[in-house]
Amino acid sequence: MTSSRWSEHTLRRRVNFYELDSAGIVHFSTFFRYMEEAEHALWRAAGLSIAPRESEVGFPRVAAAFEYHRPLCFEDEFDVHIRIVGLSEKTIRYACVLAQDGQNVATGTMTVVCVRTDVTPLKSVSIPPEIAARFEVAAGDAQ
Amino acid sequence: MTSSRWSEHTLRRRVNFYELDSAGIVHFSTFFRYMEEAEHALWRAAGLSIAPRESEVGFPRVAAAFEYHRPLCFEDEFDVHIRIVGLSEKTIRYACVLAQDGQNVATGTMTVVCVRTDVTPLKSVSIPPEIAARFEVAAGDAQ
Amino acid sequence: MTSSRWSEHTLRRRVNFYELDSAGIVHFSTFFRYMEEAEHALWRAAGLSIAPRESEVGFPRVAAAFEYHRPLCFEDEFDVHIRIVGLSEKTIRYACVLAQDGQNVATGTMTVVCVRTDVTPLKSVSIPPEIAARFEVAAGDAQ
Amino acid sequence: MTSSRWSEHTLRRRVNFYELDSAGIVHFSTFFRYMEEAEHALWRAAGLSIAPRESEVGFPRVAAAFEYHRPLCFEDEFDVHIRIVGLSEKTIRYACVLAQDGQNVATGTMTVVCVRTDVTPLKSVSIPPEIAARFEVAAGDAQ
Repeated sequence: MTSSRWSEHTLRRRVNFYELDSAGIVHFSTFFRYMEEAEHALWRAAGLSIAPRESEVGFPRVAAAFEYHRPLCFEDEFDVHIRIVGLSEKTIRYACVLAQDGQNVATGTMTVVCVRTDVTPLKSVSIPPEIAARFEVAAGDAQ
Repeated sequence: MTSSRWSEHTLRRRVNFYELDSAGIVHFSTFFRYMEEAEHALWRAAGLSIAPRESEVGFPRVAAAFEYHRPLCFEDEFDVHIRIVGLSEKTIRYACVLAQDGQNVATGTMTVVCVRTDVTPLKSVSIPPEIAARFEVAAGDAQ
Repeated sequence: MTSSRWSEHTLRRRVNFYELDSAGIVHFSTFFRYMEEAEHALWRAAGLSIAPRESEVGFPRVAAAFEYHRPLCFEDEFDVHIRIVGLSEKTIRYACVLAQDGQNVATGTMTVVCVRTDVTPLKSVSIPPEIAARFEVAAGDAQ
Repeated sequence: MTSSRWSEHTLRRRVNFYELDSAGIVHFSTFFRYMEEAEHALWRAAGLSIAPRESEVGFPRVAAAFEYHRPLCFEDEFDVHIRIVGLSEKTIRYACVLAQDGQNVATGTMTVVCVRTDVTPLKSVSIPPEIAARFEVAAGDAQ
């Protein structure tokens, strides 16, 4: 029986013009949007949406980081590989690698926490079991 | 004689509608743009532009990170305090605190490297002396 | 007795680095964000927020347009002048002029409609009287 | 012999989370980015890039407009159909329709002008023949 849990996903992407800065390279803030796109593609692969209408929980970020190794330019094609490297009662930690033609472009991390969407201020809660049951830490990644 | 070197700056800002996500809070990628705005305001305070036309050097980011403590909502006013915490021949390291009504909203860091803009791939070079002479590490921050 | 109704507002703004495209000029989509910023500043001047928490109405756009006359570059300072040129039971029409040093940079228009936020699909409704009472068509503009 | 000129293109797209506003629908400024993505996909289909490195010409926008008919929500899939409706010595006019499941979401237009990239201020020039030769006005659209 194969696993029904997801731990990683690769998104294929092309650089859009409006993602460039005036130096002709992708603006550093855009990489966080690429990482988020890959995260949401991972959730879709697992049969989930991270933000369905009327959802009682949401997943704001508590930390995010990138190290930039090589620039991306207009119309460059690249891969965004995201994997789950930590999973606790209330949080998910991701690691992310952007690569182009086999070369490492950038390396990112992101931690999200499950919160109730109907209260202010935000209050962390346990990840609902129907979501937690769909994910696991990627092989080779220490929790 | 007072110092003619700059090491920190505070930018006052209000949240724009298009910076929010569907949860009604500022999207996590936008914080990197706030940090950059404060960086450029620091450079202007020092009498410089970070990206003048025809400049032979540029300052791409090699690392950037944020930790998020409290959400920002529509029209919230907040301060972005940036300071230089490291200065080497080719790089500048910044630390950044976003605060609202005295409460810590988020804490960020960013490292930029000086490169020549007229060559591909990007090649790091020494920060021009007329720029390096305008900045120093903020008091109390270890280099 | 002076009027307590607002019909126009001018927002002073400086170009941010992340608003540029790779040609070094502000991306054409960004002008719509400038127009929106000026709209929300007009509402604040009138003592209102266009999107308060828990509001029962919202103001999605039904049309928006810009004509571009001159480019804006990094750190350019400019004015966004917005005025109300039409006001009906359910809609507000704005006209917008961006100017730099007295020169016309771009001219925009935008029409928004009042909708209930608690129903899907969006359903247009009358602008609440406490909002409608704060605005009027700018002098010299035909309704 | 089949035509070697391109006049229209359809881009398949999914709504990203960071493109939403706090009402949970795609921000109106984002539609202009969708239209631009479709334009650049049309150019690629014609064997061209609209902004190759070291290009002597660029294509800034002189006018852009959208009418919004239905909202787009998170992860919605939709088509962006762009076609050339006008072609002169120095300009290209596009019309654009966004559709979801056969329903019209929004209708846009955009006019771009060919300029030399090496002079300030921008100066319009003839579209280079190797570019002009790749495009034509879509059948049924009056020039």
